[in-house]
Amino acid sequence: MQKTIYILNGPNLNLLGKRQPDIYGHESLDDVRSQCEAVARAADFEIRLLQSNWEGQIVDWIHEARDRAAGIVINPAALSHTSVAVLDALNAFEGPVLEVHITNIHKRESFRHHSYVSRRAEGVIAGFGVEGYALAVRRMTTLLGQAHA
Amino acid sequence: MQKTIYILNGPNLNLLGKRQPDIYGHESLDDVRSQCEAVARAADFEIRLLQSNWEGQIVDWIHEARDRAAGIVINPAALSHTSVAVLDALNAFEGPVLEVHITNIHKRESFRHHSYVSRRAEGVIAGFGVEGYALAVRRMTTLLGQAHA
Amino acid sequence: MQKTIYILNGPNLNLLGKRQPDIYGHESLDDVRSQCEAVARAADFEIRLLQSNWEGQIVDWIHEARDRAAGIVINPAALSHTSVAVLDALNAFEGPVLEVHITNIHKRESFRHHSYVSRRAEGVIAGFGVEGYALAVRRMTTLLGQAHA
Amino acid sequence: MQKTIYILNGPNLNLLGKRQPDIYGHESLDDVRSQCEAVARAADFEIRLLQSNWEGQIVDWIHEARDRAAGIVINPAALSHTSVAVLDALNAFEGPVLEVHITNIHKRESFRHHSYVSRRAEGVIAGFGVEGYALAVRRMTTLLGQAHA
Amino acid sequence: MQKTIYILNGPNLNLLGKRQPDIYGHESLDDVRSQCEAVARAADFEIRLLQSNWEGQIVDWIHEARDRAAGIVINPAALSHTSVAVLDALNAFEGPVLEVHITNIHKRESFRHHSYVSRRAEGVIAGFGVEGYALAVRRMTTLLGQAHA
Amino acid sequence: MQKTIYILNGPNLNLLGKRQPDIYGHESLDDVRSQCEAVARAADFEIRLLQSNWEGQIVDWIHEARDRAAGIVINPAALSHTSVAVLDALNAFEGPVLEVHITNIHKRESFRHHSYVSRRAEGVIAGFGVEGYALAVRRMTTLLGQAHA
Amino acid sequence: MQKTIYILNGPNLNLLGKRQPDIYGHESLDDVRSQCEAVARAADFEIRLLQSNWEGQIVDWIHEARDRAAGIVINPAALSHTSVAVLDALNAFEGPVLEVHITNIHKRESFRHHSYVSRRAEGVIAGFGVEGYALAVRRMTTLLGQAHA
Amino acid sequence: MQKTIYILNGPNLNLLGKRQPDIYGHESLDDVRSQCEAVARAADFEIRLLQSNWEGQIVDWIHEARDRAAGIVINPAALSHTSVAVLDALNAFEGPVLEVHITNIHKRESFRHHSYVSRRAEGVIAGFGVEGYALAVRRMTTLLGQAHA
Amino acid sequence: MQKTIYILNGPNLNLLGKRQPDIYGHESLDDVRSQCEAVARAADFEIRLLQSNWEGQIVDWIHEARDRAAGIVINPAALSHTSVAVLDALNAFEGPVLEVHITNIHKRESFRHHSYVSRRAEGVIAGFGVEGYALAVRRMTTLLGQAHA
Amino acid sequence: MQKTIYILNGPNLNLLGKRQPDIYGHESLDDVRSQCEAVARAADFEIRLLQSNWEGQIVDWIHEARDRAAGIVINPAALSHTSVAVLDALNAFEGPVLEVHITNIHKRESFRHHSYVSRRAEGVIAGFGVEGYALAVRRMTTLLGQAHA
Amino acid sequence: MQKTIYILNGPNLNLLGKRQPDIYGHESLDDVRSQCEAVARAADFEIRLLQSNWEGQIVDWIHEARDRAAGIVINPAALSHTSVAVLDALNAFEGPVLEVHITNIHKRESFRHHSYVSRRAEGVIAGFGVEGYALAVRRMTTLLGQAHA
Amino acid sequence: MQKTIYILNGPNLNLLGKRQPDIYGHESLDDVRSQCEAVARAADFEIRLLQSNWEGQIVDWIHEARDRAAGIVINPAALSHTSVAVLDALNAFEGPVLEVHITNIHKRESFRHHSYVSRRAEGVIAGFGVEGYALAVRRMTTLLGQAHA
Repeated sequence: MQKTIYILNGPNLNLLGKRQPDIYGHESLDDVRSQCEAVARAADFEIRLLQSNWEGQIVDWIHEARDRAAGIVINPAALSHTSVAVLDALNAFEGPVLEVHITNIHKRESFRHHSYVSRRAEGVIAGFGVEGYALAVRRMTTLLGQAHA
Repeated sequence: MQKTIYILNGPNLNLLGKRQPDIYGHESLDDVRSQCEAVARAADFEIRLLQSNWEGQIVDWIHEARDRAAGIVINPAALSHTSVAVLDALNAFEGPVLEVHITNIHKRESFRHHSYVSRRAEGVIAGFGVEGYALAVRRMTTLLGQAHA
Repeated sequence: MQKTIYILNGPNLNLLGKRQPDIYGHESLDDVRSQCEAVARAADFEIRLLQSNWEGQIVDWIHEARDRAAGIVINPAALSHTSVAVLDALNAFEGPVLEVHITNIHKRESFRHHSYVSRRAEGVIAGFGVEGYALAVRRMTTLLGQAHA
Repeated sequence: MQKTIYILNGPNLNLLGKRQPDIYGHESLDDVRSQCEAVARAADFEIRLLQSNWEGQIVDWIHEARDRAAGIVINPAALSHTSVAVLDALNAFEGPVLEVHITNIHKRESFRHHSYVSRRAEGVIAGFGVEGYALAVRRMTTLLGQAHA
Repeated sequence: MQKTIYILNGPNLNLLGKRQPDIYGHESLDDVRSQCEAVARAADFEIRLLQSNWEGQIVDWIHEARDRAAGIVINPAALSHTSVAVLDALNAFEGPVLEVHITNIHKRESFRHHSYVSRRAEGVIAGFGVEGYALAVRRMTTLLGQAHA
Repeated sequence: MQKTIYILNGPNLNLLGKRQPDIYGHESLDDVRSQCEAVARAADFEIRLLQSNWEGQIVDWIHEARDRAAGIVINPAALSHTSVAVLDALNAFEGPVLEVHITNIHKRESFRHHSYVSRRAEGVIAGFGVEGYALAVRRMTTLLGQAHA
Repeated sequence: MQKTIYILNGPNLNLLGKRQPDIYGHESLDDVRSQCEAVARAADFEIRLLQSNWEGQIVDWIHEARDRAAGIVINPAALSHTSVAVLDALNAFEGPVLEVHITNIHKRESFRHHSYVSRRAEGVIAGFGVEGYALAVRRMTTLLGQAHA
Repeated sequence: MQKTIYILNGPNLNLLGKRQPDIYGHESLDDVRSQCEAVARAADFEIRLLQSNWEGQIVDWIHEARDRAAGIVINPAALSHTSVAVLDALNAFEGPVLEVHITNIHKRESFRHHSYVSRRAEGVIAGFGVEGYALAVRRMTTLLGQAHA
Repeated sequence: MQKTIYILNGPNLNLLGKRQPDIYGHESLDDVRSQCEAVARAADFEIRLLQSNWEGQIVDWIHEARDRAAGIVINPAALSHTSVAVLDALNAFEGPVLEVHITNIHKRESFRHHSYVSRRAEGVIAGFGVEGYALAVRRMTTLLGQAHA
Repeated sequence: MQKTIYILNGPNLNLLGKRQPDIYGHESLDDVRSQCEAVARAADFEIRLLQSNWEGQIVDWIHEARDRAAGIVINPAALSHTSVAVLDALNAFEGPVLEVHITNIHKRESFRHHSYVSRRAEGVIAGFGVEGYALAVRRMTTLLGQAHA
Repeated sequence: MQKTIYILNGPNLNLLGKRQPDIYGHESLDDVRSQCEAVARAADFEIRLLQSNWEGQIVDWIHEARDRAAGIVINPAALSHTSVAVLDALNAFEGPVLEVHITNIHKRESFRHHSYVSRRAEGVIAGFGVEGYALAVRRMTTLLGQAHA
Repeated sequence: MQKTIYILNGPNLNLLGKRQPDIYGHESLDDVRSQCEAVARAADFEIRLLQSNWEGQIVDWIHEARDRAAGIVINPAALSHTSVAVLDALNAFEGPVLEVHITNIHKRESFRHHSYVSRRAEGVIAGFGVEGYALAVRRMTTLLGQAHA
């Protein structure tokens, strides 16, 4: 079995920790990587954290994950609400998928309340700040452990 | 500061582990209590887990929590979608609120996609199975710790 | 096999025969009980007719029915249109469910046209007056007989 | 007073018992006729059961019923959802009208949830299988008896 | 040039003068024919007044009119709201089309507010009682006269 | 009984015959007045034709008509779609009201499909060109004659 | 005639004066009771002020009021927007009903703009603060006085 | 501080007491003026009651009120539902605004359920008959007294 | 196995080649028959091409096809958008169904964008002109060949 | 060719510079006139700047412009969202029309997002403050110059 | 004239034959290329088949096609439902466009029922499996032949 | 302070002056650059004009602008209506943003009436042709000058 968990991040998340810290906090994607690695390693998994502002790149990485990843944790950011292509790519991935939003999207503008990715994801976590990533990885290790058992 | 976290459960969750295990799994609310206590105690918090099929009871417990709880983790179940009274009660509570759904409500019937409680909750976790409770308690201890710091 | 059919009645049906007789007729719930008993006994079933204005009570009775009833005939009254909790409770009941409305709800205000319970019920009867209860019990005995056969 | 009850059946019901028996059961319109006759005769009524795939024919029969029928039991099938002409014809009929659907249309595609005929019918019965016809005839004899008394 | 004006009548209009006279008045289609003939002859036109409860028949008559009629006055009745087939047939007719409704459909149920035929008709007259037919014929003679000039 | 029929015209109709003749034709309001007078006099009525671009003026004239007019023919033009004030004023008028639109508003932009005035008018005529006014006056004389008889 | 006016209060109003005073002010339900008693007594009426967080309790009190109250002033709070049961109970009450909201619900979230109770109430007062209760009692004494006269 | 309260009345309210007394009662605007003056003077305020059928006039009076009025009580009548201009004018007024409707607009046609003015008004009173004006003036004196204190 | 493919045509298609040739082209149904026969025979199938303006006739032919046809190619024309009866009839047919529209219905009026038949058809072809029939027959032979293999 | 550009201003714009300066700024309509004159004169045009709170007046000025203006720059203010009369008047004007909004209406309440006038205007400028007027005049001179060339 | 037909494929179609074969079949894009080449060469055309997961790349290829292609066959996949950019690019292409979907998108989730590309395409083929490509190429050769003739 | 204004252009704008000149005119992006440079230099600013068909590229440029630009003028073209990613990127930019559309998008298809970017932009200009760019730059210099002052 694959022992890698992909952690994919959509548009503008490269600015994490830099833009609007009152909304998104002060931690960067590098901090996220560290926190997730700690959780993953404890369960004997690797992580591969990637970010792109380009939808096509996200789709390509999901295709790549078909052969290399046991599960995908994804924060699709703006693509959550607009990309059927990401949904379709995830539909072609066979392992578990968990969706993370740093903020509680249900308290923001109404166009952020709907996510195409939620139609595919096993679980969704929103508004837990960047801690949501690590909790999702923890859940992922549970799911992968169960699937294994 | 209060050191108790309320874990409130809405209608039909008394059947957890008994009804539709293919959807809700085999663990009961007692299992949830154990898992949450483990997490809470590690951070020096107590939990108080309650369940009722009666909306009025849930509202009364939230009022009670105003004096006795540091934070509320709530799985409003069916009331998520229909109860403005629970939302209003939570609006009168001053600590953090986290919302848990065992299943991914976004993959179910469309009337389950909207939750009044999400307008108030700091965070929402859905589709993580009963593990979602413990992860929410973990997040709650982070939030309460930050508020304390 | 259980030989009892639960007949559950939602809010305001305690006033049956007393309020707005031009709409609801002159017969009371006691009359309904008599009519249903006659039909049930002919097929060797018992009935248990209950009424409450409290949603939580209705949910509790449905839970009770999981162990004690072969089928449920329910007139959810106002809860038809508003209660996901009753729907979820019925989803956790394994026998057949039939829904009764004394009036033809499709001829009344538009918010009465939709019933959550209809998503679960095997059948719905509306606008047959209180005679609808007895006809539903008759159908229930057919369903239970078939299931038995 | 007329002593005949018309039982009108819309498109595709000629296939009853032949198509999709898992949905519609194994009984044919002839079986329905027998069951309804038994009920009607006990109350001293005749029945006239008709079926057509042609909306115009249904309208013509309703016009005919103005002079010859005491009441109409109708399963408009597909026309329920699309035919204002059938509704208008029924509006020009003065006796009671009862609407029957073999399946619970509220559990099927959303375009089947609305029925023009329900705006006119005294009562609606859905999801009681072909037994719904006989129950409707029973109710019809009650209504006609009351009107007579 | 053709000198005949077709006056087509949809479902249930055969009952004109017989059903619901408080809504539709006491005059029959024969009275309508007389009134229209008087107006038409004064302008040197013939009329051909037809009625059917069958949509297919109305479509066939419109096709027939392609060769034999100078213009069409149509009261589509219930088909106004539901028949794209009638609209398409009228789209294949090259002369002027006028639409008549005896009652003011805008004061009735909301599903009567929309008419497919209005997308094709040069003019619409509603709520003028049966006098609307004769006024439409008058207008038709004006239109045909202008087209001729 | 009053022997005057008010013919009220809303915004921009002062331009009739001057603006967009391909849509509205070449005849002016003066031509309309002549045609209506001919019809009215034949039935022994007077007309009073007025036009204003000011909604308040139209309301005032309708109030004036309460004492001086037997009936109102109104082309509310743009106010059809936007003015509840005109509707309310007409609701306070006790005689018959007929609504005229020169063009077939059902073939134009969708915001022109709805008219507040149609909720009050006995009849509506649209798309009959300026001839619609005279036909409406003719109908008005019928209505007033019937009321008289 | 009954000389008591019921003043019913829905969920969370027990917190009045305690929660969110910037929205709801500093006065408690006891203050409301005093103000209403002053107004009622001047007109020779008694009041009975009750509050519950339980919908079933509110329904029960309305049933009780059928025998004991001349009129009902109700602040349904959250139940305004969600409870058909309360509406149905009020429909079974024969005296006048007035609805009070402390805040102007039309300026708040859109789900608060609609109230089922308004379909039944003779009058609605919103955004007058707790003074709204006393003004509603004043109006109630007028209505009851008129009914008496 | 200004000691005058403006009481503005929209279209058709000049007919108060004259049109549809079953809906609007028998009292005129003069009666309203007397009742309001009595309340206002008791609190040492003057009133200025005005009515127009012209939206522009209402806007002008609101502008005038910016310099001369302490508060505005307004019954916008038909303009409630259609006039953004009145809303904008009120937004430019700095004192409190209270909205009055004689009837309970929530029980009437659905287009009357929404009021632009309610977005600006501190409070709304509907269905209290003409007594609503005096109650609103009473509330206004409270508000102005508080602002003063 | 049946070796006949039914090609059914809905209302107004008898005018093909005669009406609006700029939209529908110059070829008639006879031309369609020839083109389809050529394709069908190459794959050793027969065709039976029928047309009716009567919905009931279309339904009857689909019933007939249950015993005599291997597959159905259907251009429902106007019935696409309005006929649940045709959909239900096709649901009772067990072979493959392909839907043809001569024009691209997605570029026309919005009410033509939805087709009930598409819910049943294996495939849909629109805007390929009359060539669409032959291409659909070609596809049908593939499908039937696969089913056979 | 006419050498005058009309600059029309709708309701409440007479308060420009006086009301809500945080939204609308400190410049008055006189300042706007000066800025526009400077731009217009450089291109050899005159301007005529007018303002009214009365819709009828705006319509009259647009009619006047038919003979006297080369183009119209209009800030319809509240009328943008509600006035079909202004739209119809502009439709009868033959020169170019440009629409100005001082604020970005797309960032305000949703009822301000739609403008009837935008259906007619060649261009729309919103959120450029009062500078938007001068920029629109500049564009108008370009358009008129092109038309001239 | 250009003799090349572009066959463009949107996101995830590189997985054709690999992902979800029960939905998309076992044939790959290479198989599609072979089938299309066979059809194209018979009519003396070349094909150029391309695929990308990147919307920008699809747009660039369409621009390239402006100079090099006689027609475009496009399967926009997920972009059908979300990309106005692809629509705009196709609007700038002057030759014929045909749209292909492997599955019948009308039978899938409702967000797949709408395609921006259908507003531009001459024809649409859906649910014909990968055979749809070859049939579209065949149609394209007809269209290009006609344009040539 | 940065002295550069970014002028970003979305998909298909590279074809400006080449495609559909009746809609977009004959001027190219190079012409736009020249006009904007003239305006910018007069106010002592530089411009950087960029275009891409790739959403990811636009996002990257906006991120780049965070460090290098004083303000952004953007014509998002098709992305206006579909890209939350561009909106989010602009939300992370701190200077002023102005939105340009060459055509009046409010007169085109309804899906073009809404722009995500308008939620962020200080101002929007549409339908001013390519001159809109220069006018937006002029406004930008005003805004930047004010911010500076």
